[in-house]
Amino acid sequence: MGGAVAMMGEPAILERPLARRESEFCERLFAVLRHATGDGVGITRESFGTGETRALAVVERAARDAGLLTERDAGANLVVTLPGSEPDLPFLACGSHLDSVPQGGNFDGAAGVIAGLAVLAGLKREGRRPRRTLKLYGLRGEESAWFGRAYMGSSALFGRLTADDLAAPHAVTGRPLGDCMRAAGADVDRISSGEPLLDAQRVAAWIELHIEQGPVLVARDRPVGIVTGIRGNIRHRRVECRGEAGHSGAVPRALRQDSVFATAELITHLDSHWRALLEQGRDLVVTSGMIGTDPSEHALARIPGKVGFSFEARSESRQTLEDFYGLFVTECRDIATERGVQFTFDRRLETSPAVMDAGWVQRLRDAASRLGLPDEPMASGAGHDAAVFANAGIPSAMIFVRNDHGSHNPHEAMEMSDFMAGVAVLREALVQAAW
Amino acid sequence: MGGAVAMMGEPAILERPLARRESEFCERLFAVLRHATGDGVGITRESFGTGETRALAVVERAARDAGLLTERDAGANLVVTLPGSEPDLPFLACGSHLDSVPQGGNFDGAAGVIAGLAVLAGLKREGRRPRRTLKLYGLRGEESAWFGRAYMGSSALFGRLTADDLAAPHAVTGRPLGDCMRAAGADVDRISSGEPLLDAQRVAAWIELHIEQGPVLVARDRPVGIVTGIRGNIRHRRVECRGEAGHSGAVPRALRQDSVFATAELITHLDSHWRALLEQGRDLVVTSGMIGTDPSEHALARIPGKVGFSFEARSESRQTLEDFYGLFVTECRDIATERGVQFTFDRRLETSPAVMDAGWVQRLRDAASRLGLPDEPMASGAGHDAAVFANAGIPSAMIFVRNDHGSHNPHEAMEMSDFMAGVAVLREALVQAAW
Repeated sequence: MGGAVAMMGEPAILERPLARRESEFCERLFAVLRHATGDGVGITRESFGTGETRALAVVERAARDAGLLTERDAGANLVVTLPGSEPDLPFLACGSHLDSVPQGGNFDGAAGVIAGLAVLAGLKREGRRPRRTLKLYGLRGEESAWFGRAYMGSSALFGRLTADDLAAPHAVTGRPLGDCMRAAGADVDRISSGEPLLDAQRVAAWIELHIEQGPVLVARDRPVGIVTGIRGNIRHRRVECRGEAGHSGAVPRALRQDSVFATAELITHLDSHWRALLEQGRDLVVTSGMIGTDPSEHALARIPGKVGFSFEARSESRQTLEDFYGLFVTECRDIATERGVQFTFDRRLETSPAVMDAGWVQRLRDAASRLGLPDEPMASGAGHDAAVFANAGIPSAMIFVRNDHGSHNPHEAMEMSDFMAGVAVLREALVQAAW
Repeated sequence: MGGAVAMMGEPAILERPLARRESEFCERLFAVLRHATGDGVGITRESFGTGETRALAVVERAARDAGLLTERDAGANLVVTLPGSEPDLPFLACGSHLDSVPQGGNFDGAAGVIAGLAVLAGLKREGRRPRRTLKLYGLRGEESAWFGRAYMGSSALFGRLTADDLAAPHAVTGRPLGDCMRAAGADVDRISSGEPLLDAQRVAAWIELHIEQGPVLVARDRPVGIVTGIRGNIRHRRVECRGEAGHSGAVPRALRQDSVFATAELITHLDSHWRALLEQGRDLVVTSGMIGTDPSEHALARIPGKVGFSFEARSESRQTLEDFYGLFVTECRDIATERGVQFTFDRRLETSPAVMDAGWVQRLRDAASRLGLPDEPMASGAGHDAAVFANAGIPSAMIFVRNDHGSHNPHEAMEMSDFMAGVAVLREALVQAAW
């Protein structure tokens, strides 16, 4: 893709008058969005529902005001275009989603859309015409909070919504997803036939800016991070450890088959393996979010005969996931033998990792470096639309912006200066590739 | 206390015609009891209620038939007497309780009463008159299942029932304990004044035979065990570990404050300390019978911010309890620092250990040895009336009889040959002390 642009690369990016103007533009847009979709507690932009539609309208209007072309695609997503001089070349796409969880925050999703709009509007204002067309997507339906299914908007683009997905009932109203999509303007007949609404061959890259949903950038004191991959996972909703119940006073250690001591040992060993794999430079996070003895059998003086717990491992690497799962199964077997207990597993659930495009990861890191911005290469633990684009064969990459207090809550705390640093990296990389 | 009796000490104790007759006597009594108090599932002898009263009547009638004196004391307990030739000497007491949990087993409690009756009736039948009076107690109200309070019958004997205890409502009917005791014939005015119904100075010893409620004798292949002490305990009904909730994919290990991993590590460390103390020859059992994350916060992908668990340590030794508790608190502090979590404790509950009389423990072990019986010195993990007698200053000791499937259920499995071995040890030791 095309040559570098000489004018970019000032180290103190936020001291340019232009940047200050862009920052004000974005801040204003965030404020309008917050006002349009506030719910009194946080903001609510229901997937294929009122708040989301309102958010698309806000962004569309700002795009038109900036002189950009806008349309809705067959998935009812907002598409904003800055036409290139060689329209037959595959286009560069950026953006994110405009829906939110109930009582969520203003930045999860919307930040990526406003960032893209800032870049396209800035280039338009400057009268710069790229060789390659640039498109911004304001996607619908990314959050699983409403229909249980995540990435509905991007999945529809690639013919990846099944009949089951379209029949999924709305968490509150029970109305099927397909109906809600149709009401929002999507061509559900094409979607339900599995026909792709977007030809992946036509997309040169998908670049998504998103707030970080974890604490890494805050802890490392970095305004932005470049995402190297989106973690996949292996999960069990419930693993059960069965031992033998007994009177806590009357059974000595040697004769115990204590399910809680066995499970504690298992989790402690998993923690050791986790640490060892990290020391080998592997990417991994491990969680047992739910654990519990059976309340109907609860007594202080009862050796617990049974305890259930959840298992989750996430990694950018399928190999690491399988390696760790193997250690998990081996530990269960060893501890079962040692302690006279039994572990049983429900269905193994899994999601594949999504690899970010190495060339684009490097391009984004180089862009940050040219801008004098310290960045952090990091895995994304949460899923994103970028994984759907990547798995459709489109070179994809992501920019994370530092954010405190996680996401999916009204306390998301992203500083505008960090956001503008992310916008600058996005612009630098897109400009470099578009000319 | 008096000299040994030459006629005892045959190694094959169950091959004597007399022993066979005693065994039949006991088996018949167990059968009558089972028939009189069966509930269709197990047996039910409600404390200060119908089944218990019926059980006292069965034993009283058998005692009278054997030519022994019977009476009810001011606590409405059954007292069976074989008068000694020197009635001014403190008497030797044996027995146990005649109540049961709902749908319980036939042996928990009743075994000790029938054992004592077998000994007194045997001596009476043989025309042997001890120097010291022998008394058998068929105690009421040992089980906490009915009023929440355990050892009500024996506690009443030593003025240890409080106004609160007497006001405790029946678990089913809500009728206060005091009313139920009065209806059963107890002198509740004396009891509520805290006046002892029995002068501890008059009791030379309390020897209680009971089925083992744990698996030790089965595992060690011993028919009887001599109890060295009744374990006390230190407990917390709820310890809470608080960390920080977060997205399971987005928070790397170094930034986690995971309450479940912290608690698993704590329990695993407690297990190591437990093993180390056992290797030093200390008596200890440790249990965390209840553990759980908050179901209202449950999600596979949520780092658990909070988990609650119970803590219980039991030992014959107060020093060991305090030492282990110290280790527990230290581990909580260290893990809290290491993992950025916080442990909070509800009220510390404790019950003192009861020390069995060393002389009587030796006497019972010697008796078993003379009878050619392999025995096992062991702690009692469950509480017993013997602890109340011991804490009233009466030299006390216990004989455990091998029993499978624990207690408090209809599947208690005590072999009559093991029971008769226990009866022989009881008789041998009482005879040695009574003459």
